[in-house]
Amino acid sequence: MSRIRYGGDYNPEQWPEEVWAEDRVLMRRAGVNLVTVGVFSWAELEPREGEYEFAWLDRVLDGLHEAGVRVDLATATASPPPWLSARHPEMLPVTAEGVRLHPGSRQQYCPSSPVYREHAARLVRAIAERYGSHPALELWHVNNEYGCHVSHCYCDVSAEAFRRWLVRGYGTVEELNRAWGTAFWSQRYGGFEEVWPPRAAPTFRNPTQLIDFDRFSSDELLDLHRAEVAILREATPDVPITTNFMGFFKPTDYWRWAEHVDLVSNDSYPDPADPRSPALSAMSQDLMRSLAGGRPWLLMEQASSAVNWRAVNAPKRPGQMRAWSLQAVARGADGILFFQWRQSVAGAEKFHSGLVPHAGTDTRVWREVEALGAELAGLSDVVGEAPRARVAIVLDWDSWWALEQEATPASLLYPNLLFAWYRPFFDRSLLVDFARAGADLSAYDLVVVPAMHVASPAAIAALDAYVRQGGRLLVTFQTAILDPDLHVQPGGYLGALRETLGVRVEEFAPLAAPELPGAEPPVVALAGSGLDGSTATQWTEYVHVADAEAVAMFAEGDVAGWPALTRRTLGEGKAWYVATLPDEAGRDALVATLLAEAGIEVARGARPGREVLERAGRRFAIDHAACTVEVEPASRR
Amino acid sequence: MSRIRYGGDYNPEQWPEEVWAEDRVLMRRAGVNLVTVGVFSWAELEPREGEYEFAWLDRVLDGLHEAGVRVDLATATASPPPWLSARHPEMLPVTAEGVRLHPGSRQQYCPSSPVYREHAARLVRAIAERYGSHPALELWHVNNEYGCHVSHCYCDVSAEAFRRWLVRGYGTVEELNRAWGTAFWSQRYGGFEEVWPPRAAPTFRNPTQLIDFDRFSSDELLDLHRAEVAILREATPDVPITTNFMGFFKPTDYWRWAEHVDLVSNDSYPDPADPRSPALSAMSQDLMRSLAGGRPWLLMEQASSAVNWRAVNAPKRPGQMRAWSLQAVARGADGILFFQWRQSVAGAEKFHSGLVPHAGTDTRVWREVEALGAELAGLSDVVGEAPRARVAIVLDWDSWWALEQEATPASLLYPNLLFAWYRPFFDRSLLVDFARAGADLSAYDLVVVPAMHVASPAAIAALDAYVRQGGRLLVTFQTAILDPDLHVQPGGYLGALRETLGVRVEEFAPLAAPELPGAEPPVVALAGSGLDGSTATQWTEYVHVADAEAVAMFAEGDVAGWPALTRRTLGEGKAWYVATLPDEAGRDALVATLLAEAGIEVARGARPGREVLERAGRRFAIDHAACTVEVEPASRR
Amino acid sequence: MSRIRYGGDYNPEQWPEEVWAEDRVLMRRAGVNLVTVGVFSWAELEPREGEYEFAWLDRVLDGLHEAGVRVDLATATASPPPWLSARHPEMLPVTAEGVRLHPGSRQQYCPSSPVYREHAARLVRAIAERYGSHPALELWHVNNEYGCHVSHCYCDVSAEAFRRWLVRGYGTVEELNRAWGTAFWSQRYGGFEEVWPPRAAPTFRNPTQLIDFDRFSSDELLDLHRAEVAILREATPDVPITTNFMGFFKPTDYWRWAEHVDLVSNDSYPDPADPRSPALSAMSQDLMRSLAGGRPWLLMEQASSAVNWRAVNAPKRPGQMRAWSLQAVARGADGILFFQWRQSVAGAEKFHSGLVPHAGTDTRVWREVEALGAELAGLSDVVGEAPRARVAIVLDWDSWWALEQEATPASLLYPNLLFAWYRPFFDRSLLVDFARAGADLSAYDLVVVPAMHVASPAAIAALDAYVRQGGRLLVTFQTAILDPDLHVQPGGYLGALRETLGVRVEEFAPLAAPELPGAEPPVVALAGSGLDGSTATQWTEYVHVADAEAVAMFAEGDVAGWPALTRRTLGEGKAWYVATLPDEAGRDALVATLLAEAGIEVARGARPGREVLERAGRRFAIDHAACTVEVEPASRR
Repeated sequence: MSRIRYGGDYNPEQWPEEVWAEDRVLMRRAGVNLVTVGVFSWAELEPREGEYEFAWLDRVLDGLHEAGVRVDLATATASPPPWLSARHPEMLPVTAEGVRLHPGSRQQYCPSSPVYREHAARLVRAIAERYGSHPALELWHVNNEYGCHVSHCYCDVSAEAFRRWLVRGYGTVEELNRAWGTAFWSQRYGGFEEVWPPRAAPTFRNPTQLIDFDRFSSDELLDLHRAEVAILREATPDVPITTNFMGFFKPTDYWRWAEHVDLVSNDSYPDPADPRSPALSAMSQDLMRSLAGGRPWLLMEQASSAVNWRAVNAPKRPGQMRAWSLQAVARGADGILFFQWRQSVAGAEKFHSGLVPHAGTDTRVWREVEALGAELAGLSDVVGEAPRARVAIVLDWDSWWALEQEATPASLLYPNLLFAWYRPFFDRSLLVDFARAGADLSAYDLVVVPAMHVASPAAIAALDAYVRQGGRLLVTFQTAILDPDLHVQPGGYLGALRETLGVRVEEFAPLAAPELPGAEPPVVALAGSGLDGSTATQWTEYVHVADAEAVAMFAEGDVAGWPALTRRTLGEGKAWYVATLPDEAGRDALVATLLAEAGIEVARGARPGREVLERAGRRFAIDHAACTVEVEPASRR
Repeated sequence: MSRIRYGGDYNPEQWPEEVWAEDRVLMRRAGVNLVTVGVFSWAELEPREGEYEFAWLDRVLDGLHEAGVRVDLATATASPPPWLSARHPEMLPVTAEGVRLHPGSRQQYCPSSPVYREHAARLVRAIAERYGSHPALELWHVNNEYGCHVSHCYCDVSAEAFRRWLVRGYGTVEELNRAWGTAFWSQRYGGFEEVWPPRAAPTFRNPTQLIDFDRFSSDELLDLHRAEVAILREATPDVPITTNFMGFFKPTDYWRWAEHVDLVSNDSYPDPADPRSPALSAMSQDLMRSLAGGRPWLLMEQASSAVNWRAVNAPKRPGQMRAWSLQAVARGADGILFFQWRQSVAGAEKFHSGLVPHAGTDTRVWREVEALGAELAGLSDVVGEAPRARVAIVLDWDSWWALEQEATPASLLYPNLLFAWYRPFFDRSLLVDFARAGADLSAYDLVVVPAMHVASPAAIAALDAYVRQGGRLLVTFQTAILDPDLHVQPGGYLGALRETLGVRVEEFAPLAAPELPGAEPPVVALAGSGLDGSTATQWTEYVHVADAEAVAMFAEGDVAGWPALTRRTLGEGKAWYVATLPDEAGRDALVATLLAEAGIEVARGARPGREVLERAGRRFAIDHAACTVEVEPASRR
Repeated sequence: MSRIRYGGDYNPEQWPEEVWAEDRVLMRRAGVNLVTVGVFSWAELEPREGEYEFAWLDRVLDGLHEAGVRVDLATATASPPPWLSARHPEMLPVTAEGVRLHPGSRQQYCPSSPVYREHAARLVRAIAERYGSHPALELWHVNNEYGCHVSHCYCDVSAEAFRRWLVRGYGTVEELNRAWGTAFWSQRYGGFEEVWPPRAAPTFRNPTQLIDFDRFSSDELLDLHRAEVAILREATPDVPITTNFMGFFKPTDYWRWAEHVDLVSNDSYPDPADPRSPALSAMSQDLMRSLAGGRPWLLMEQASSAVNWRAVNAPKRPGQMRAWSLQAVARGADGILFFQWRQSVAGAEKFHSGLVPHAGTDTRVWREVEALGAELAGLSDVVGEAPRARVAIVLDWDSWWALEQEATPASLLYPNLLFAWYRPFFDRSLLVDFARAGADLSAYDLVVVPAMHVASPAAIAALDAYVRQGGRLLVTFQTAILDPDLHVQPGGYLGALRETLGVRVEEFAPLAAPELPGAEPPVVALAGSGLDGSTATQWTEYVHVADAEAVAMFAEGDVAGWPALTRRTLGEGKAWYVATLPDEAGRDALVATLLAEAGIEVARGARPGREVLERAGRRFAIDHAACTVEVEPASRR
């Protein structure tokens, strides 16, 4: 594990065997040392129920081993073969509207289906037995992108599983009735058997039912993962295990998942046409390092150039693949892998770029692939050591699920709020860790909590402790509005954080546009320390200061004169509260103030558009507009 | 009944009993004298089939009675408990696409379901028996917002009910074939059993089938209401009955409903962020007074501040709750009530404001609640006497349903056309009654008929008689195009109104944008008396003047030189026809002319944005921008 | 057949018989000589299963015959009667989401339904027997607008039919697996019984499955047509047969259909509000002449004024009906017919204009109908001879279906690309033929191939042969990317066309907007011969010139300096390749160059907006803005 892994998904079953030999030659030329095999091979490995055809895969793995390429071997359960649903149509997933999803694409299984589970387990066992001691095996790749197309299933089988999950969580239906608040709208259940997944309904569905179904759906997928892990562990206790995450992916609570992988890995497809992409991919990379507990991780999938699933798919610009790959390395990646090795000539992803493009090796893409392989080989010394962040942003899936429900104060998008606060740090080349709600934050000099809508007592206690131990905390509007049952704590919003922040919120005043065609929401000016000249966006509210100072005020509208930004000093600690989303300039000014207070300096040479990062004695200076990267020893700074 | 009712929906089942005591104290502080109880209590009152639990409700009503608060007691049938559909899944409603709607929100019943009907009737009977003589009982509240989420059900049970409704209406299938025009598109039915609700179909569905299904659906809901009324009447002949209307609500023909309530009541939620809201809520209030036959009505539900169901929910501005409440009083409300008393902490409406907000009583909202209660107590002398309007606008649900069907000359929105003509009167603080098609109009000095697309002979005769008796009538384009079977009367549009108006319409020329991205429809200038400088919007057409004068012309396009506005004088009467929707300035000028002719003057001090209204010796001057109201004796004007 | 046919759909079953007499009088006044009868008469002709009622239709046809009006008699199978689906609900069509479409509109049949097929065949037989020798019969009109509302059915019956079609085409499931590329995404089928229509699925469906389902669906409809033709041929070998096409209609591959009609006919409803309509209708007319193999065709349906199915339906402008009708005549129409004779007063199309409008005969529309009838009677000498085009555009349904699939390089719209290249010829009044892929092109002086995404070896060979024989060929980007299995040929795009064009494409670079609200894609300047000052839209790419000259370059962005337009000279032949869609000015300049090279001159007096066309010694000069047409002997030019 002392070289940066380089390679990608390898699907040789798409090609005649004569191509495999060329593949191995080209892999060596490109410096490929790890490929992921078998992700979509179930139908090839088990073409008829219970009849396995492993010979072809034997030849693939043997050939790779001879070529010195190691294997991330998939359990092949990501997409069941057509014969399975032909025999057991009840294992096909169903939408909230009752539409049964059919074969013809991929991932057509109900996560709760015993049929799917039994057949998948049998396949994993067979693969683990056959290849557990293969010399090419480096890593197990469980399933693939869990939940990316079917994260929630509403079928009758899922309904039963959901009920069992509720019984485990609530014990009695009375407790469920209390937690779900079923006294309202005549929803009181007489027994668990009366409960349904939140299928299509006349109007807004019960919020706690919805979030419990989100939690159940994440858990149910995690169960699938854990069942495979158990089989693999038993067969090969020493082979590490991963499953590929998808960055900020709403349906799966990766905090819970990360405990069940040995190596965190990520699939990342930023849009080459979008100027925000470097910042967005940095945010995704920082999340992976955080999920890995500050340890390195793998970039499991990216594209060599264009993807195929946007309305218009821009290719990567010359140099952009290298720039984004080195950005990942600088932020902790120990591997740079791609989907997929050889671009398909048929099927739904044939217009997704590959390391070997349709046009062959006399191409810009291939030349960049070869060059990157060589360059990564020279960066082996970074492997195993991840860079450290001094800033953390709290990320919480419950809050994501709750904030984006129907019937909330405003249609806020949680990742947009995270990104709004991530961006000023990115523009200064400052690493940011994402922290789990309730985690110990003492390692950080600065912590930001954007819209942590749902807050458990433990989550609040952790923030309070952090400040009281001298930390610098910025909490934004829509934090700690709900408890984990999605109940409001009466008495002024912010719950127990009122103590920490010294403020309470009387009422929300989100910035609403009138219901007219094309109407835009109003903009409210801000006034006060550092925020003069900037404006409030999306949100305002009525905040009472109890034991804090009002640092900036709303300057217009009904909220004129009410605090927009407050600060409470608790010994060395400082607890800030911001009652709006200041515009970009405002956020930038506020972050500048917070960084100065925290004594965090910007890396020399860093500026917006020019990222300067260090890892293990290497300094990476990335110019995103020019798609260039200078890699130097860090001592030269 | 000599005080203005003040209060709101009270759902104590959401709270532990110790809160009930506080509720009563706060109600007294706020001057609350009427609360609506039990709207969503079915599952609490009948937690298992046939087992009623009334003890808790006994305590609620007894406590309210002791506190001097009277009760609008709901029949609790608005949302069936989960056990009912668990036992009888066929009672769940189904969309036109065949999606069965599930429990988890509310109102999940097929209006035609015998299962629902039997269980609801049994519950109403039990409630009427238990509380019919309770001293707190002031009013029965039947169900709740009929049809707000499920107004049309397409299930097999509904199909059977629709067929029975058709048999009752048409007698023979030959008559249905004639009325529906089934000779076209090979739709001729051999028997009623071949007829379906207008489920999803390959293309445009039969227009008469569609409107009959609209009529059936409104009737079917009304049947539910009437069945409850019959039970209540039998048990408590002297207790008045209401059900809460929802302003301009398309699915239910409130003209037919108003005959079956003792007291008209309304739910009204204008958007605080929308500058049109004062005019829109005035229009809704004027409708309620009209449905009540010119008698007072109740504002049954409004919000103390924000609602929870818009994309972004603005709070009410300081003073806005009072301003809009007094507007309702000035327009005839004998009660000002809210949804709901205490803001929920759980469930789908927890972000809907309440009289007691999440933040408690040390809040702007609560202070305004207390102040309004005190102020209303001082306005008791208005109770029982509603103000009178001299202007009427004809409102017709058949026309609404027909005008907004698929495959019409243009996608016109009926309420928008009503509002376009209501607005100039609102801007002059002039009350407007809405009149039912076919009603006697002799009480009015001016009558406007916007786009009464469907006209029965009686409706046309009423307009004609009105003019011939000296009335002033303005009819707009798309009036009297169709008879009640939705058949066109050939020979030039306007049907028998051609006689009244002295014009006939040869052909429509709606203002269409080319089918290009972002294309806007053209604007056509108008020329002529009072309309110079204004423009035609949405519509033009080719009008022939037979026995009238052309007052204004289209000035551009293919219709240049054709009449845009005509006037026929019939003795004292005047019959105007306007072949377009003039822009705001044009409508304002035309209304000014009509008012001058009718001898109607604007109240002193009234101007756009400043509403000045009188009721029972009180004068209310409302400044909507400032959210202030001056209430004075009317004699001071 | 020596007069231009004039008339339209005649649906007398909508009217009492006394109206029929008036119809005949008015038809004579208007010069009507052909009407289409019975299109939607199934339910009237067979009101109960197996019981035919022909008496009324006898009277209709006898009356028309006496009046000298001939009949295009429909087989009446376009819309089955309600009793059929009441008895056999499984014959109703089902969407990809599983929604069963119900009666109430029209065309509610699954094209593969044996129930529908048997009942339709029996009806056709009965009609053919009864009317095959009626003296009024001129033409058989099979069904109506095949597939306009239900082109694809996903029900279980269709699934079985699709499997049979696949068995016929592929023979073995191994061959299907190869063609569909099922090695990817674990889609390998064990047998045909495992295959489904492309029903709703978790994500992108297999592209070859999708296009095979498109091909199957077109074939399945064609089967219906052919089954009726076989019955009619047997009964009346000498009566010509048509079915009405719908211009550029995606679901049906009219190249395959045109072989199965004696007379090509078209339904055409351009938007009177859209300034592009003259060009769009010309394109549709040119297609009809091409489908007819260069012979005349019928304009089977157009509107006298407004249609009823747009969001806003503009009427035709004065003179526009004549101008568009004469445009059709000038482009080869031997008949000008309308939907429908008398405007309906009921049903879903009552707001669709008719030859006899709602307002009767004292109307602009009727006067124009009479005048046009008289004018057409004077143009009989053009009948039978169609004008010839020197330019061809290749049109290919496979390419249409493939290009507009999900998961492609960019969301391109095939008809828009065709129109973009058709337009410069239209603006010069130059006729364009559409040519089938693979057809002999030697009759043309210039051939344009826009985005022929799918190319068979034969299609490529035809283009190559055309150039080598001295032709002038312009090929655009996204041509020959896929073979008929929708597989990419590796080695640089363009497949075997690389030889013809002397270029290969390394990588695509479609112009993508960032995923931000309202973001617009970039514009890239072009530089070089004739294209200076114009810009690239929608697309750029990386093109390598092997054996051609680069005529113009991209001037900006990552593609700056790469060829945008190339030309290869092959003896007399020239093969151009354009790697983008130049803006309007660029396309115009390029077409001007190509025309000059081909020696094609613009008709005297023609200019954009003024179409000048000749047919059979007549010269038609059409001013589309003024809606005027001058018709003169061609010799006067």
